[in-house]
Amino acid sequence: MRALVRPYIGVIGPDPCDEVVGERCERIGRLLAEAGAVLVCGGLGGSMERAARGAFEAGGFTLGILPGTTRAEGNPYLTLSVPTGMGEMRNALNVRASDAVIAVAGEYGTLSEIAFALKTGVPVVGLGTWVLSKEARAGPDAIARVSTPEEAVASALRLAGYS
Amino acid sequence: MRALVRPYIGVIGPDPCDEVVGERCERIGRLLAEAGAVLVCGGLGGSMERAARGAFEAGGFTLGILPGTTRAEGNPYLTLSVPTGMGEMRNALNVRASDAVIAVAGEYGTLSEIAFALKTGVPVVGLGTWVLSKEARAGPDAIARVSTPEEAVASALRLAGYS
Amino acid sequence: MRALVRPYIGVIGPDPCDEVVGERCERIGRLLAEAGAVLVCGGLGGSMERAARGAFEAGGFTLGILPGTTRAEGNPYLTLSVPTGMGEMRNALNVRASDAVIAVAGEYGTLSEIAFALKTGVPVVGLGTWVLSKEARAGPDAIARVSTPEEAVASALRLAGYS
Amino acid sequence: MRALVRPYIGVIGPDPCDEVVGERCERIGRLLAEAGAVLVCGGLGGSMERAARGAFEAGGFTLGILPGTTRAEGNPYLTLSVPTGMGEMRNALNVRASDAVIAVAGEYGTLSEIAFALKTGVPVVGLGTWVLSKEARAGPDAIARVSTPEEAVASALRLAGYS
Repeated sequence: MRALVRPYIGVIGPDPCDEVVGERCERIGRLLAEAGAVLVCGGLGGSMERAARGAFEAGGFTLGILPGTTRAEGNPYLTLSVPTGMGEMRNALNVRASDAVIAVAGEYGTLSEIAFALKTGVPVVGLGTWVLSKEARAGPDAIARVSTPEEAVASALRLAGYS
Repeated sequence: MRALVRPYIGVIGPDPCDEVVGERCERIGRLLAEAGAVLVCGGLGGSMERAARGAFEAGGFTLGILPGTTRAEGNPYLTLSVPTGMGEMRNALNVRASDAVIAVAGEYGTLSEIAFALKTGVPVVGLGTWVLSKEARAGPDAIARVSTPEEAVASALRLAGYS
Repeated sequence: MRALVRPYIGVIGPDPCDEVVGERCERIGRLLAEAGAVLVCGGLGGSMERAARGAFEAGGFTLGILPGTTRAEGNPYLTLSVPTGMGEMRNALNVRASDAVIAVAGEYGTLSEIAFALKTGVPVVGLGTWVLSKEARAGPDAIARVSTPEEAVASALRLAGYS
Repeated sequence: MRALVRPYIGVIGPDPCDEVVGERCERIGRLLAEAGAVLVCGGLGGSMERAARGAFEAGGFTLGILPGTTRAEGNPYLTLSVPTGMGEMRNALNVRASDAVIAVAGEYGTLSEIAFALKTGVPVVGLGTWVLSKEARAGPDAIARVSTPEEAVASALRLAGYS
């Protein structure tokens, strides 16, 4: 008996988050669970907790990668958690643990995860999130833009090679 | 519905390992699963694979924290895996993710995990593993010595605060 | 006798880089050295090497934080280098080691450093680099925009609290 | 003009330390500086500060790799310092930055550095430090034992390939 090969999809976004973002993250979590994916997140509150809750309550696996040294800081919807003691540097581990990430809104922490994902070749799906351009030129960035949680999950699974 | 609070017990040891060590690790894994604990390991072969196999085949959760950047290097008995891209530095993350660790035999990598655990206050149970002393003085070290997998698991759960 | 307290200024940008970016970085490095600052960089080629060269040849201290496990990969203009074995995750260490960073052009790696700096409160000066906005709203971002190496260095030193 | 290739020698030991250990570390630091080596240490007090002081006051380069997020915690004898925000995990970076390490006495943190060095192939010189053995067998360990600071420095430089 061997472990199933599952897609690992990161959901990244703000903490705290408003209710619109929270509902989107919770729905993304639920859809990921229904698709058999593992939900990866930073393990704390706001969008992380809402995404984990959506997935966990739908029977999915959730993995929280925490900044501090104790799992007591994690939200209550994590199947498994990993305290790292690395502070915000753990954002890079969230990305390394994901086959694709979905960015929902977000502040600078989310931006750091988007950038690290793009740098290391992890596909990024964006739902109302950062827009990246350069002073020297404009044009579409490398984020796959979507408008709904359903599109976000479908896009992330496809980009992760599962569809 | 909230996630259960479970003990996380690391099993650390050599890769590759001989059959005596392998059987001990597999039995420790099985006992941990039966106790409802999460088995934490480095995710690769040898003692890591044997411990994960014992736990996974008994229906337990197994978490592998991998040195490279892809989960393809993980053994097939990991419920969830975390590629870190940190090389041997990920040994410290194995310890951070554990409420107690059981060291079975082992080489320098195991020693680094024992030392990091003792430094950061994570209890260490030893089964035929390193003996630590200082040039300046002799005497018992801080490792809880046991002789069997059964004793190892009972000791680790007790030291982790579950018993 | 105690070590001088010096500003540590990171210079982040692309590898490889074109000649315009290279000349800007080299000039920034020289100006930082003349101001008594330590030049922090990722230690490799392109803009990192040009900045380090500018600073080192002007008699300044240069610190390279390397992604691999050997300092042999560093460019030849590093007073001191730190191999990390953490791959691109070392970008976060570049930022942690800096009191302010100057971003010159740059790709996703540079973006990850900009984002990590903004997240952790390290001031960012931008010279022809990324422009950050959000789908939900437009407006100026938190990067201090400048047009010349002279302005970049003056701005970085001021934002780092030295001026 | 290129940077000199210098040996990087780590000095690892306890914080706080007694006067015997402190004098040994300070002398090791001075001898390393006189040999043109870079002194690598954890940047804090006790043996780290004494070693850095010995090297710095003799005109050598000293590099401190700090556990926290600010260089304000570093001792005053560091030519350059790197805050990591990784806590005790930064011990592994001390080792990665060293071509050889000298362990003087020490507690569990020192042991973690000895073990990580032995794991990753960085030579270890020991002066009154940990003795490693296994339950299954006794015999000399892989630490090069010395009795004086002079022997420690000579041994470390030779093992690092400089002599």
